[in-house]
Amino acid sequence: MSADVVSLQSRRSQPSLAPMLALTAPGMNSVNAVILDRMQSEIPLIPALAGHLISGGGKRMRPMLLVAAAQLCGYQGTRHHKLAAAVEFLHTATLLHDDVVDGSDMRRGKAAANIVFGNAATVLVGDFLFTRAFELMVEDGSLRILKIFSQASSIIAEGEVDQLTAQRRIETSEEHYLQIIGSKTAALFAAATRMAAVVAEKSEAEELALEAFGRNLGIAFQLVDDAIDYDSDAAESGKDKGDDFREGKMTLPVILAYARGSAEERKFWEEAIAGFRTEPEDLAHAVMLINRHGCVEATRDRARHYAHRAIDAIAGFPAGEARSAMAEAVEFAVARRY
Amino acid sequence: MSADVVSLQSRRSQPSLAPMLALTAPGMNSVNAVILDRMQSEIPLIPALAGHLISGGGKRMRPMLLVAAAQLCGYQGTRHHKLAAAVEFLHTATLLHDDVVDGSDMRRGKAAANIVFGNAATVLVGDFLFTRAFELMVEDGSLRILKIFSQASSIIAEGEVDQLTAQRRIETSEEHYLQIIGSKTAALFAAATRMAAVVAEKSEAEELALEAFGRNLGIAFQLVDDAIDYDSDAAESGKDKGDDFREGKMTLPVILAYARGSAEERKFWEEAIAGFRTEPEDLAHAVMLINRHGCVEATRDRARHYAHRAIDAIAGFPAGEARSAMAEAVEFAVARRY
Repeated sequence: MSADVVSLQSRRSQPSLAPMLALTAPGMNSVNAVILDRMQSEIPLIPALAGHLISGGGKRMRPMLLVAAAQLCGYQGTRHHKLAAAVEFLHTATLLHDDVVDGSDMRRGKAAANIVFGNAATVLVGDFLFTRAFELMVEDGSLRILKIFSQASSIIAEGEVDQLTAQRRIETSEEHYLQIIGSKTAALFAAATRMAAVVAEKSEAEELALEAFGRNLGIAFQLVDDAIDYDSDAAESGKDKGDDFREGKMTLPVILAYARGSAEERKFWEEAIAGFRTEPEDLAHAVMLINRHGCVEATRDRARHYAHRAIDAIAGFPAGEARSAMAEAVEFAVARRY
Repeated sequence: MSADVVSLQSRRSQPSLAPMLALTAPGMNSVNAVILDRMQSEIPLIPALAGHLISGGGKRMRPMLLVAAAQLCGYQGTRHHKLAAAVEFLHTATLLHDDVVDGSDMRRGKAAANIVFGNAATVLVGDFLFTRAFELMVEDGSLRILKIFSQASSIIAEGEVDQLTAQRRIETSEEHYLQIIGSKTAALFAAATRMAAVVAEKSEAEELALEAFGRNLGIAFQLVDDAIDYDSDAAESGKDKGDDFREGKMTLPVILAYARGSAEERKFWEEAIAGFRTEPEDLAHAVMLINRHGCVEATRDRARHYAHRAIDAIAGFPAGEARSAMAEAVEFAVARRY
């Protein structure tokens, strides 16, 4: 598999996030300052709960991509710092609500907010972060930005409901799955990178190129996330291994294993996704079946397809540190095993 | 008590919502069309769940007040229809999340959405309505409106968290309670009526007058809601009687009964608010204590104070059908027993 990743840009070593981190470090310092400042409230529970997740080791991929995209566009201003913070707030709000919806135990390697603070507080602080994100966007004062952001938010919310509808439905197709992750995950990546082009006053073509970069990267990112949940080689992720399986989520590894499976295997999947096989040995059996049919690898293959599209989408921008770092970040995202 | 209400405007009969309903009927037809149109989605669960609450007999007080305020300002356009729909969507989103947070069984006289559709779907469709509200506001295209709306949303979310923090805390003061309801309830009333002045391009003084009208009415409205939950004379409300009591909510009737109570009574309240007295006989005892000290009546007195302030706030607008209907709606809101 690593041969495929290497072939993405004929790279010798494993792709790294280091160039991206170096590129965006100054910008992300400013973004982090906005995040810390604007998650404050006179109600102490708000910064306590928000901080539990926000300070809890997130990679801040989305704001980082926005900062990188702004640099790719040669943007010299500071408007994007607020926008990047808003993107992270919206993302954090959806994570908080996801953890309530899924009844998660772990997030980013520690107890999920709903476990520490309860469902009620987690829902309401999520709402607060939603509104704070909109406040930041309104403060920026651009209706074009607001339109991109509000439409993306609405698509994300629709995608979350769609995912819930598909849960425990074995008949969910790859096409439907792609639609779900295109909404719930990729829409925010796409909005983030697109906004960079808008603040930099780039052409519509460049705006759409960055939108395509973000969208394809977002799809690739989610595909790999979903592959890792069944990857017996993968390191520990921040969340509980097998969460997707126990929750009856129809992610691509399962969709492919079901499609490729024997009648007997399909029977297992039907029972498992319906919620009648939730023991550790059931998970072990699921992982075995998925690997028997190469479905983790196939999911990663799909991810590499979208990664290629992401990298090619920004080929028209000037070569340089920003474009290289963004391309390598994409490669990193699909090669990662955690 | 009815003597007091009558004195508000030396009215002979009971105040009625009829003039308000008649005044706003044409506008509300348009608002309802926007609501029905914009709660649609390709994900069938979204209109099903949203419709359960939205079509479920709500009074649509907030959009109706916005429409009435626009008429008070002599506004001839149609921009306020979308804004009023957005206000109702935001309100509906908070109701859905409230029902999850409180574990409500009933809402508007029927099973709450969380009971019918589950907590997960209710949280996520609430999120969808939040984002749809922002989309509608962005479509309107006024940054001033967006600022009012996004700030109000953030204050509402803060107020919800603040209320959660105060729950089961017997030491919550009347001042703190007023701050909570000022945020969680009155902020949206205030934003709604204020926006009417903005679209009508009225002066800042008129904008602030309508803001004060909405805010004071919102406070009065919530005070009466909280009084009704302990009013042994009140008719059935749409929600379960005694919900506030069982949830340990520190509403004004309880705050006053605790302040005015004997040592023995205080001990009862401490146990009840902490959650150790949740039986029907405990609720009956609570109602008895609250009535012994006249705390329902005192809460209604407080409400009448804010009602007076609301009515006086719009005294500078031209007399006429709109102003009379709005004033009578305020009187109706504080006199209601359900």
